[in-house]
Amino acid sequence: MAYIDRIRECSVYDPSKYVPFMVGDVCVGQIETETVAYLREHTDVFWVSDAAVHLQPDLDGFDDRTAAFAHVTATLRDDGLIPGWRDEPYPVGGAFNLPPLFEMERASVPLFGVRGYGVHMNGWLSRGADTLMWVGRRSLSKPTGPGKLDQMVAGGQPAGLSLFENLIKECDEEAGIPEDLAAQAKPVGTISYMTGRAEGLRNDVLFNFDLEVPDGFTPVNQDGEVAEFMLWPIEQVIEKIQNTEEFKFNAALVIIDFLVRRGFVPADDPDYVDILAGLHQ
Amino acid sequence: MAYIDRIRECSVYDPSKYVPFMVGDVCVGQIETETVAYLREHTDVFWVSDAAVHLQPDLDGFDDRTAAFAHVTATLRDDGLIPGWRDEPYPVGGAFNLPPLFEMERASVPLFGVRGYGVHMNGWLSRGADTLMWVGRRSLSKPTGPGKLDQMVAGGQPAGLSLFENLIKECDEEAGIPEDLAAQAKPVGTISYMTGRAEGLRNDVLFNFDLEVPDGFTPVNQDGEVAEFMLWPIEQVIEKIQNTEEFKFNAALVIIDFLVRRGFVPADDPDYVDILAGLHQ
Repeated sequence: MAYIDRIRECSVYDPSKYVPFMVGDVCVGQIETETVAYLREHTDVFWVSDAAVHLQPDLDGFDDRTAAFAHVTATLRDDGLIPGWRDEPYPVGGAFNLPPLFEMERASVPLFGVRGYGVHMNGWLSRGADTLMWVGRRSLSKPTGPGKLDQMVAGGQPAGLSLFENLIKECDEEAGIPEDLAAQAKPVGTISYMTGRAEGLRNDVLFNFDLEVPDGFTPVNQDGEVAEFMLWPIEQVIEKIQNTEEFKFNAALVIIDFLVRRGFVPADDPDYVDILAGLHQ
Repeated sequence: MAYIDRIRECSVYDPSKYVPFMVGDVCVGQIETETVAYLREHTDVFWVSDAAVHLQPDLDGFDDRTAAFAHVTATLRDDGLIPGWRDEPYPVGGAFNLPPLFEMERASVPLFGVRGYGVHMNGWLSRGADTLMWVGRRSLSKPTGPGKLDQMVAGGQPAGLSLFENLIKECDEEAGIPEDLAAQAKPVGTISYMTGRAEGLRNDVLFNFDLEVPDGFTPVNQDGEVAEFMLWPIEQVIEKIQNTEEFKFNAALVIIDFLVRRGFVPADDPDYVDILAGLHQ
């Protein structure tokens, strides 16, 4: 078992099993061919060509599209196609820094293979020559990855907040980190992956941050989403990543990125090029 | 002017202007359609199908292929197609960690769009709250990028050395860094790009290293490849990267990767996602 096994778990994607989801000439997602049959019935929202699923062109404004999607996703939820409903609107568009074309319920994002964005923060500290990392265990009530290990702080990126504002908010809710400490988090890059899972296609870009946490500070969850926090030597984190699937699939990649950036993975590791490619799909 | 301009200079690639270069069923490069006419004459080495340039299948061993390539590249050099001849064998294969299929002269690598590998090392140090970086100016006699700004240490990856062994060697030759200091360099990831330049297609993966250089250590070039070294505040490096083309095209990407990893680029920069994608093409 090795880092590359965690990468492979985030690379389960056979393009022949998906068709593009188009809004006009903008591709906003990838839909599994099995799902297309369900969407074909909803002719008020979708039309299906040989090459793609298209949003009906008469839905030509943000509000019309959002209302149509609210209606159709409620029906698909009732048919059992959208587990873990959250009542949380999620912006959908052609690129992160362009205005969204419409909003959909967040739990339906994987069904449509829409690109998802999130913020993930590694909490770490040095003690002499040792590096330690704060690890969270996700609450058993979370719709995705219940009980899995995770970053100190992680959350989806909602509409209406900057990434940094969202990080500050998540730091408070997930770990009780005061704003003046959270504001010291450093942006350190992104990872991206496209992988089929039970809930659909996860087609995500995660914005990664590192926060050097003062020795003695203890995170305290505020919102019930984290069951417990552990402060582990980095060697224990590495052992879990390399040999188990205890970390949530994408949290493992965020940690591998941390380990690469900080020199814990030798360049002569035979998987090095593939690991880096897998962090940036 | 901004980081994204440097990224775009390393993303000049129109797939319709290239055909794959195949050895058996392994794609080892991308050849410009203009170049194919020259190769078509050398029927002892190449055959050209509608879809690709193929190495003649009767050249079926490492030695035969290498000898045939030595012959044909010498002719292409005499025809003016391979500038900057180095007399340096370069391994060619399907992936970095697989045995090479043959070797070719290093200066011919871009003509065949063969994937090139190199090691690049950022030399940096802290002085109080400030970050400083050692910058090299390439000798005017270098075949690529004469007089351009570069990392403290950088070099192509030859056959027969590990990446770390090569880094130690280059640290000595380029900057007179003793082995015990060079061995403290940390591997911090890769960048990759595919971009057409005067010499052909640069299709490279660079293995990046960071070395924290003791304050007071001064690099001294040993091999004539570096004209001068400057120790600059990171703000001066950023200004040059954002507003000029003084850094060699790929050295600029290595520094942008350094700046991203160390939190100098805000995640809310509107180009952030595109910058990260451009560092990992």
